[in-house]
Amino acid sequence: MSVTAAIPQDVRNAVSDLLAEYGMALDQDRLEDWAGLFTDDCDYRVISRENEEQGLPNVMIWCDNRDMLLDRIESYRHVNEYNLHWDRHVIGLPRHFGQVDGLWQVEAPYSAFQTDLEGATRLFSVGRYRMGLRVESGVARIRSAVVVADTGLIPTLLATPL
Amino acid sequence: MSVTAAIPQDVRNAVSDLLAEYGMALDQDRLEDWAGLFTDDCDYRVISRENEEQGLPNVMIWCDNRDMLLDRIESYRHVNEYNLHWDRHVIGLPRHFGQVDGLWQVEAPYSAFQTDLEGATRLFSVGRYRMGLRVESGVARIRSAVVVADTGLIPTLLATPL
Amino acid sequence: MSVTAAIPQDVRNAVSDLLAEYGMALDQDRLEDWAGLFTDDCDYRVISRENEEQGLPNVMIWCDNRDMLLDRIESYRHVNEYNLHWDRHVIGLPRHFGQVDGLWQVEAPYSAFQTDLEGATRLFSVGRYRMGLRVESGVARIRSAVVVADTGLIPTLLATPL
Repeated sequence: MSVTAAIPQDVRNAVSDLLAEYGMALDQDRLEDWAGLFTDDCDYRVISRENEEQGLPNVMIWCDNRDMLLDRIESYRHVNEYNLHWDRHVIGLPRHFGQVDGLWQVEAPYSAFQTDLEGATRLFSVGRYRMGLRVESGVARIRSAVVVADTGLIPTLLATPL
Repeated sequence: MSVTAAIPQDVRNAVSDLLAEYGMALDQDRLEDWAGLFTDDCDYRVISRENEEQGLPNVMIWCDNRDMLLDRIESYRHVNEYNLHWDRHVIGLPRHFGQVDGLWQVEAPYSAFQTDLEGATRLFSVGRYRMGLRVESGVARIRSAVVVADTGLIPTLLATPL
Repeated sequence: MSVTAAIPQDVRNAVSDLLAEYGMALDQDRLEDWAGLFTDDCDYRVISRENEEQGLPNVMIWCDNRDMLLDRIESYRHVNEYNLHWDRHVIGLPRHFGQVDGLWQVEAPYSAFQTDLEGATRLFSVGRYRMGLRVESGVARIRSAVVVADTGLIPTLLATPL
């Protein structure tokens, strides 16, 4: 815990801003803005909690640079010509672990909801983010993000990123 | 994003305090305290996400000053002599957009739950707040608030504010 | 509200870190770490919102020092040899009330979800935390915690702490 006391204020603020924009960009369907939160050499993975806890290598989504993220977004847009639902992320307070190899390590829990065109909302997924962040001039960018989903997910191009 | 790095710390703290009290005041049925978070000349609206995205003018609730907010609360109290449910708001991290015309612009996602007298809880509404805030001496007041509700809502006097 | 403006930044950060770790420790089944967030002379209670509002003395869980917390965890582990579900807490922004008798008073809303082994997630409980915190060298410890649960709960050894 003494580590967390030493997190600079501008890093705390940058992390909070990044997580807020991360959720808002996804929820407002600004997926290109969302990809803009990652570094060029980023690594983005979605894994199930079950696989994480058993140390299994299965990954539901894996993009190991930003171009792959953008490709995935384009595929997603192509498949979903009409927006079939709205997303809403509520992300909890981040936990700080200090710096490793120049990247600020944080975790945060999320709840994600989906609302259909009739206005009915359902719980879609809960889990946590594990991120390694580059912070420069008060702005955080994601070098690595692992989404550990508690909720079972069907891996599909149709799925919006979490 | 460079804008957000320039948000003063006391503004960040005031915004966080305001959002925390906003949810707690609603949830504890301290509706007059909730109205006290607004400026006299406030503007409070609840709109559906569908209407917002289509640029439609429909508004489910609209109070264009604090007296109207207080009137609405009185009507609500009159109709609901007995408290039929409990509310619980979980509001996510705020996104900062800097200052426009002296008002600090923020957005935050919310999830709202209702629990009936048997103790059964259901998801009631998700969406986001868009606020313009006056911050003085470390205290934020709401000059304008738009609640954009993803979840379909029935406009009624019976509804607690979101 | 003028009180909240006077909360030192290191107290704000310590409170945020504590709440983040509180949820993560529970969700990752690090219950001993969770107990480590409390002071030796802590007081931990889970009560229903109904009882709180009616001023009734009923308490669902009550541990009046950390050894009792640890005993409870051991019983819980003994009864639940196999982990039957995963928890996920999403805790909202804390509300600050200043210092009373050397303890920083805060409240925060929570939503808690449970996911079964098939990956199905359900809303488990919503409510709020009311805590008195000792903050030293930028680290917060829980002297007293009251979990006020809106959602009805069955008091049982099988229940994970909230």
